[in-house]
Amino acid sequence: LRFMLNKGLKPVEVAHLLEKTPPRERQILWNLLNKDLEGEVLQYLGDEAQAEILSRMEASEVLAITESLETDDMADILQQLPERVMKELLKIMDRENRERVEQVLSFPEDTAGGLMNTDTVTIRPDITAETVLRYLRRHKEIPETTDTLFVVSRKGSYIGVLPLTRLLTTDPDVLVREIMNTDVDAIPADMPDEEVARLFEQLDLISAPVTNEEGQLLGRITIDDVVDVIREDADHSLMSMAGLDEDEDTFAPIMKTTRRRAVWLGINLITAFIASAVIGLFEETIDKVVALAVLMPIVASMGGIAGSQTLTLVIRGQALGHVERSNIGWLFNRELVVGLLNGLLWALVVAAVAVVWFQDMTVGVIIALAIVINLIAGAMAGTMLPMILKSLGIDPALAGSVLLTTITDVIGFFAFLGLATLFFA
Amino acid sequence: LRFMLNKGLKPVEVAHLLEKTPPRERQILWNLLNKDLEGEVLQYLGDEAQAEILSRMEASEVLAITESLETDDMADILQQLPERVMKELLKIMDRENRERVEQVLSFPEDTAGGLMNTDTVTIRPDITAETVLRYLRRHKEIPETTDTLFVVSRKGSYIGVLPLTRLLTTDPDVLVREIMNTDVDAIPADMPDEEVARLFEQLDLISAPVTNEEGQLLGRITIDDVVDVIREDADHSLMSMAGLDEDEDTFAPIMKTTRRRAVWLGINLITAFIASAVIGLFEETIDKVVALAVLMPIVASMGGIAGSQTLTLVIRGQALGHVERSNIGWLFNRELVVGLLNGLLWALVVAAVAVVWFQDMTVGVIIALAIVINLIAGAMAGTMLPMILKSLGIDPALAGSVLLTTITDVIGFFAFLGLATLFFA
Ligand SMILES: [Mg+2]
Ligand SMILES: [Mg+2]
Ligand SMILES: [Mg+2]
Ligand SMILES: [Mg+2]
Ligand SMILES: [Mg+2]
Ligand SMILES: [Mg+2]
Ligand SMILES: [Mg+2]
Ligand SMILES: [Mg+2]
Ligand SMILES: [Mg+2]
Ligand SMILES: [Mg+2]
Ligand SMILES: [Mg+2]
Ligand SMILES: [Mg+2]
Ligand SMILES: [Mg+2]
Repeated sequence: LRFMLNKGLKPVEVAHLLEKTPPRERQILWNLLNKDLEGEVLQYLGDEAQAEILSRMEASEVLAITESLETDDMADILQQLPERVMKELLKIMDRENRERVEQVLSFPEDTAGGLMNTDTVTIRPDITAETVLRYLRRHKEIPETTDTLFVVSRKGSYIGVLPLTRLLTTDPDVLVREIMNTDVDAIPADMPDEEVARLFEQLDLISAPVTNEEGQLLGRITIDDVVDVIREDADHSLMSMAGLDEDEDTFAPIMKTTRRRAVWLGINLITAFIASAVIGLFEETIDKVVALAVLMPIVASMGGIAGSQTLTLVIRGQALGHVERSNIGWLFNRELVVGLLNGLLWALVVAAVAVVWFQDMTVGVIIALAIVINLIAGAMAGTMLPMILKSLGIDPALAGSVLLTTITDVIGFFAFLGLATLFFA
Repeated sequence: LRFMLNKGLKPVEVAHLLEKTPPRERQILWNLLNKDLEGEVLQYLGDEAQAEILSRMEASEVLAITESLETDDMADILQQLPERVMKELLKIMDRENRERVEQVLSFPEDTAGGLMNTDTVTIRPDITAETVLRYLRRHKEIPETTDTLFVVSRKGSYIGVLPLTRLLTTDPDVLVREIMNTDVDAIPADMPDEEVARLFEQLDLISAPVTNEEGQLLGRITIDDVVDVIREDADHSLMSMAGLDEDEDTFAPIMKTTRRRAVWLGINLITAFIASAVIGLFEETIDKVVALAVLMPIVASMGGIAGSQTLTLVIRGQALGHVERSNIGWLFNRELVVGLLNGLLWALVVAAVAVVWFQDMTVGVIIALAIVINLIAGAMAGTMLPMILKSLGIDPALAGSVLLTTITDVIGFFAFLGLATLFFA
């Protein structure tokens, strides 16, 4: 086993193995791992698993195992350290490295600056392709995923890119200035990472230059790190809708899991009590017609399902940049009509079943009306909630579904039992 | 506007604009677009939007606008055509192009073969770096996102890769054989695209060779297309859980949307009726104690929420390759304990509220027991359902949440009302 971990598997495979191992066995595997592989493996672990392992290390140990990593990967790991340990680590680091890491750490983790690496290969515009080739040959190695060289001025200002594929097919005597590509806009260091990801996706980029406000080249972002951003953001929507965190370790220990889930259940309990309170208003009516208690969950559930579909579509649309103020009106109207049509369709079906089941026409009419009302409410809430939440700076994926089901439960029960109270009065 | 579409915006930006425009305006914008840009724009549209626009075109038109695209992008578009139009198009295509497109089309869309492009630059192992450089210089252009050359034998068998960064830093007299990298495994053409994506993610690849069963190089896969796979698969989990399709056009017309949503509502209606039927079994008990009708949604909802959290975690774990037969046992046990602990915690809270609200100790005891039972049921169903569904070849993201809430509704209502019937008998 020790041999397999240290020789047989690649670091990324070891990380994958650790991720799918429960806590106690994970600790055993980690202890079997050679010191010189620990940094490599660590960088491939998810945030929570990283933090867990790092929490048992001294600053000097962390430094020893991460020293050989690329700057951006090192910065990623440092961000999982407790404040105190991170400060200590920066203190004992050598100056050159510290400056590079602090450069990356000075930007929030979820911006272009936090994503970038400082391993750019830069050239001047006024040299020939031949000179560039000779210059490159003097390097023993060019950083992996280097697909373009960055052309900068004497003062370090970003001017353009020279793709290696262009360099290789060009006449050696031509100047860099004549073959460089100045169409590629540099990414400002404070651009949010979702936007960086969208740029990479749309323009099919492999790497892109990052500049500060003065236009000076700070570093570059590479597609492999952008892929991680895309995966994380997508995970975020999925996990948030169930009140989970995208960094969550699948094999987190019992107490940690219990505590986190408890919060979400507590929030949902409040909304369940609100729904119960609505039902409580109509106790007398239910006492008169017990069939209402049997049928009422149908009304609430149909509204919740229809609303969730709209909500999910709008949240995805927001993430893709398809849904915004300018077109939400059209979407709202469509969802309203779709809700109405489906409401009418299923209201008829449910009413028919209810009439046959309870031999009572009135119950059929009431439930049909309540379903139409609730599907329309679901459509309206599903479209507007994410827009409102986003404009308030609240994550729609996290808060949206709780609020939506509260609304459809309240309106569903209120419409159904309220109408029943009128009809059976 | 016409100027902006044809000159001001890049094709990918036009596509993005079309995606966020409702159907009628989208048609107007499309008509304003120059013929020679249509193919470029089309390739960036989502599947459903593509199909919509293509449905109004003749085979010859489609050919005219897609002819200049890369083979893989052309194949993607052809797959959205109706069978008849696609056959006609292949018939009128020139031979060389047809063979290349048919090569890609001969593999299912969601495999390595369906993802690949045929634009590889290949070299022999027994030439010098110098010769390679001269050979490249004779090309006017190397395909974009070429980061490595593929080394193949005389018979076209894949041998290894030569990264451009390696080529540029090497001594010109060295043989390709001595500097090529043979560690990079070729991807078999029938590998599922999720697995391809995982490989690219883990190994930080930019491009990778694709081979057939005999080891012959068929083409290559590039990261930009893998990014689309990652985005689609992530979208798939999110959208499926709400019964939506990841290819869905956010601005699909009313009737199309209504029809699709109707199916999902119908399926959920069946499960709602099942829950109602369970309640119906206990009509007499509810008639005796109306408080039960007020409180019963709380039991069902708490079980559903807890179960959904487990379900989402397991579905994501399956997608990431973290959850499998070997470790599902540990996960099952943890979820059980977490369900029990949270069940006990919230059972106490709900019981206390219920006792104060209805001044009835028995109701408190009953609801506490029912909540513990239902949270445990939710944990068990949330863990096992995705495993069972996956082994049956059913998509857990699609079927999981419907089945889960059916289970937690049935068990929740049955436990609560059943216990009440015993206690109040
Ligand atoms: Mg992170
Ligand atoms: Mg970072
Ligand atoms: Mg982010
Ligand atoms: Mg792309
Ligand atoms: Mg990285
Ligand atoms: Mg990196
Ligand atoms: Mg497509
Ligand atoms: Mg797929
Ligand atoms: Mg394809
Ligand atoms: Mg990676
Ligand atoms: Mg493509
Ligand atoms: Mg491609
Ligand atoms: Mg598709």
